[in-house]
Amino acid sequence: MQFYSRRHLDFLLSEVFNIKQLSTYSLFEDHNTETYKMVLDACHDLSTNQLRPLLVEMDVKEPQFEDGRIKVHPKMKELMLAFGEGGWIGSPLLYEEGGQQMPYMIFNATMFVMGAANYSATAFPFLTAGAANLIRSFGTNAQKDYYLPKLYAGKWQGTMALTEPDAGSSLGDLTTAARPTEQGYYLIKGQKVFISCGDHDAVDNIVHLMLARIEGAPKGTKGISLFAVPRMRADGNGGLEFNDVTTGGIFHKMGYKGAPIAHLITGENDDCRGYLVGQAHRGLNCMFQMMNEARIAVGFNAASIASAAYYSALEYCRERPQGRKIGTKPADQSLIIEHADVKRLLLFQKSIVEGSLSLLMQCSLYADLTRVTTGEEKAKYEALLDLLTPIAKTYPSEMGCLSTSAAIQCLGGYGYTNEYLPQQFYREARIHPIHEGTSAIHGMDLLGRKIIKDQGKSLRLLMQEINITLEKAKSEQLLQPNAQQLEQYIEQISTLIMDLGGLGMQGEFEKMMADATLFLEAFSLIVLAWQWLKQAEVALHKADDFYRGKVKTCQYFFSYELPKIEGLLKTIQQKSAITIDMQNNYF
Amino acid sequence: MQFYSRRHLDFLLSEVFNIKQLSTYSLFEDHNTETYKMVLDACHDLSTNQLRPLLVEMDVKEPQFEDGRIKVHPKMKELMLAFGEGGWIGSPLLYEEGGQQMPYMIFNATMFVMGAANYSATAFPFLTAGAANLIRSFGTNAQKDYYLPKLYAGKWQGTMALTEPDAGSSLGDLTTAARPTEQGYYLIKGQKVFISCGDHDAVDNIVHLMLARIEGAPKGTKGISLFAVPRMRADGNGGLEFNDVTTGGIFHKMGYKGAPIAHLITGENDDCRGYLVGQAHRGLNCMFQMMNEARIAVGFNAASIASAAYYSALEYCRERPQGRKIGTKPADQSLIIEHADVKRLLLFQKSIVEGSLSLLMQCSLYADLTRVTTGEEKAKYEALLDLLTPIAKTYPSEMGCLSTSAAIQCLGGYGYTNEYLPQQFYREARIHPIHEGTSAIHGMDLLGRKIIKDQGKSLRLLMQEINITLEKAKSEQLLQPNAQQLEQYIEQISTLIMDLGGLGMQGEFEKMMADATLFLEAFSLIVLAWQWLKQAEVALHKADDFYRGKVKTCQYFFSYELPKIEGLLKTIQQKSAITIDMQNNYF
Repeated sequence: MQFYSRRHLDFLLSEVFNIKQLSTYSLFEDHNTETYKMVLDACHDLSTNQLRPLLVEMDVKEPQFEDGRIKVHPKMKELMLAFGEGGWIGSPLLYEEGGQQMPYMIFNATMFVMGAANYSATAFPFLTAGAANLIRSFGTNAQKDYYLPKLYAGKWQGTMALTEPDAGSSLGDLTTAARPTEQGYYLIKGQKVFISCGDHDAVDNIVHLMLARIEGAPKGTKGISLFAVPRMRADGNGGLEFNDVTTGGIFHKMGYKGAPIAHLITGENDDCRGYLVGQAHRGLNCMFQMMNEARIAVGFNAASIASAAYYSALEYCRERPQGRKIGTKPADQSLIIEHADVKRLLLFQKSIVEGSLSLLMQCSLYADLTRVTTGEEKAKYEALLDLLTPIAKTYPSEMGCLSTSAAIQCLGGYGYTNEYLPQQFYREARIHPIHEGTSAIHGMDLLGRKIIKDQGKSLRLLMQEINITLEKAKSEQLLQPNAQQLEQYIEQISTLIMDLGGLGMQGEFEKMMADATLFLEAFSLIVLAWQWLKQAEVALHKADDFYRGKVKTCQYFFSYELPKIEGLLKTIQQKSAITIDMQNNYF
Repeated sequence: MQFYSRRHLDFLLSEVFNIKQLSTYSLFEDHNTETYKMVLDACHDLSTNQLRPLLVEMDVKEPQFEDGRIKVHPKMKELMLAFGEGGWIGSPLLYEEGGQQMPYMIFNATMFVMGAANYSATAFPFLTAGAANLIRSFGTNAQKDYYLPKLYAGKWQGTMALTEPDAGSSLGDLTTAARPTEQGYYLIKGQKVFISCGDHDAVDNIVHLMLARIEGAPKGTKGISLFAVPRMRADGNGGLEFNDVTTGGIFHKMGYKGAPIAHLITGENDDCRGYLVGQAHRGLNCMFQMMNEARIAVGFNAASIASAAYYSALEYCRERPQGRKIGTKPADQSLIIEHADVKRLLLFQKSIVEGSLSLLMQCSLYADLTRVTTGEEKAKYEALLDLLTPIAKTYPSEMGCLSTSAAIQCLGGYGYTNEYLPQQFYREARIHPIHEGTSAIHGMDLLGRKIIKDQGKSLRLLMQEINITLEKAKSEQLLQPNAQQLEQYIEQISTLIMDLGGLGMQGEFEKMMADATLFLEAFSLIVLAWQWLKQAEVALHKADDFYRGKVKTCQYFFSYELPKIEGLLKTIQQKSAITIDMQNNYF
């Protein structure tokens, strides 16, 4: 069963974003169309032959907490090693670090494909990569030598250990304590919850990249430090000994059940050693590197699940006869894909899956360009990536919930049963608007930080990029009305930004920020419309069904999705303060 | 834990819809505020003490198919009898039929409360009531005497057996055959799928109200007849014998797992007897009575689940400290209900739950009035009920999915875990846009039938009703802008209806109907805005927190929900034919 479109991936990589341009930089000079093809082929094989067959099984036989440890699917050990051996954890690293200097465009494409095959299974290597990358960026040489080979090989699991029972969105309130010792390490004490892959039996050890507060540190986010806290530590004799990291339990959850989420207790016996990574009190700055990578990754994961659901729905709609298309004879039963409303549901999914992936590839390209450029050029790509991150995380996440829902709807009653996959994807998709920052957090990040940062410099850079696309579109008869429509909305949202900024200048921050989530939604529609125009420009004069579908989906987006901005702008523009004025007792 | 607001129910019954008016009719003359209170109190007790405690257990220990039969939760037998004894299955019936002549407004209110406590459990009596009501309306006296006492007492289960593996939305294609015999009964042969409560061990017998095609009947919907097909039939000696209705299996599904959905095989041994109910070939007409009742009921059920999710989220938001409200000191942690965006999520849910319930009560009032009026007056209420049914079914169903999703979001990561209820409600809510006609079917029903029926007579009647509310609102300073806004949208949608009707007149039916689902969504916003104005008018000059919350929620609806109509109208107005033109091969 198809779960992604290789054709579409190739279209984005080669035709829309011209990945060849990267080979002009020495970092990527060894790569070319052939090497990329090999990587994507290998990824396809792993995904099809090893990941997909476990999709349902990992959902049904979920991990269990037994005798103080979490047991996951028995095949995960084999998979972790396969991820490591295939370079699926560390391929973007430099050659001297054991990597393949792979562009993020390709690395992220493989993550997308594997996620579409089996999202739960990919959570393990993804978190490992994030933890390893933190050590790589901020750790000492000794830390790198000790941890990285095992992590990138898939022998050890890495985690991000941030959340505590009383500190989720508000990290500044975390209380896990780190007491310095004369030996140089710290003694860690506290509790962490919702730690993805925080404990399991498919690896020999687990290394938590953990946030904690050094005794005497300032309150709030500026007193947080980053530590490597392994479950088992080196015993000094080449072996491992228990590091007082206890698993308190497992959270059973609605979806992606194959990946365990742990409750961890550190330092119950005052013997949990943490090793400082980076500077003291700068932990959150370090963690932000990982979080930004993770946010783009969540976007890819959300697009993966939506892709898998879309293709399962598409397959069903192409095979299921039911009813008659309007205007046909009663004798001729129609396939449901012939009904206009079913096509609308499919176009909705296609526009979300392919639009999201296009934006995520755009971000990946910017990420690659930051690695090979310097000075102002590098600053430009960093600014663009930074500005687009909340959108690249949130749009696929929020719309992925609706897209998987549309997949269920395509199957009718069957879609609600466990006999078909869409219900699993629907359950899995729902995590994404929550983890790595809720949609509300990203709304505030976009409006309250990134848009207004440096007097709107990032925003101007983005508008320059969008204008290049608009100018090209305006020279095409078919796309001209779309370009004009988009220009008009950009004008409206620019005015809105000035208005909201005005509120901020007057000190009315609460009012300025009250509808930040809706602002993010509106702004996302503009960014996605840009991506759709970009795709349509490439497809417009090429003649096969794939390109025709591209252009039609662009038209769908402009006719059905983009107009949603009208209601959003109207609502935000009112600055009604209704939510602020609503009192607890009125509910 | 609260799962509905009695205060809000009382507000609708007494203050908005003045249920007292019903007592002026002889059918309801024995009822008054006191008798209603007793009924709602008893319902509250049953819901709180017997239904709610089983909510999670019925989800976790789902029904199993063993040895050819379905086994449900062991408490269901007791509950079925409790439903029967309490009059929760047949209270709207006449006294001489063993009922209590209860208004639908009250009967439906009790269904709402019980559904909010435990939707799965209420599916059993609800389907029984639907089946019994069909026999009551169309059956022979002998059929009534035989089946009804057992069904209304909760001793036997009733079902609606329509769907077949190849005939879901398209009932005209069903193939279950009915062969006449000299004994008067028919021999039934065929398969039915997705039969809710189609087999289980909590009752002594199951009576399927089944659609089948008498041999030689015309093709399509005009050749369908209705039969009572009991699992066990009378053996002629006062006992029961097997009627060749075999359970082929159970469909495991994403939500409301406590209610089993069966696959049934009839006549495997050519010994399944069906008893004609109503006239031959008129089965679908009979079934439509049940389906219309069922559609309103689905609306109530969807609102129930959204209500339960809303109150679980509200409780959490009132207790969970996290972050700081903008403008407060870092030292003072805020409850999350103080954050504007959390209040927005809660207002969203409140507006859906209470708006839906208001519309459903409006429909219930019309249903009650059709029972006590005659001639043109009766025709008016029938027309209004008929027109509003697709909206009363679909709006709560579609928005219930989003509302339960918002409940999850309020809880953040905890909302995704099985430790809290919102994830269960999210899974349960998703069935409603599918069963009893998908949203697309209702869109076509509204636009293609009900709006244009009798030269738009029903629509004119509805507009008269809405105008009464608008006129009152225009005399209130606070509501005047809302009333004007609504009037403007009504004008726009009226123009759109003329436009679409024009397409129909030109024979362009496919184009006219292509966006019928979106039309339903747009039209629903107008109807819901009407209901919110109605509630606000009553609450406006009354002074306590409940009424203040009502007015604020009305303002929320007009500022955040109603503007969504702008994008919808723009999309439909384009009549772009994009979905029609999209080809199978382009996907």
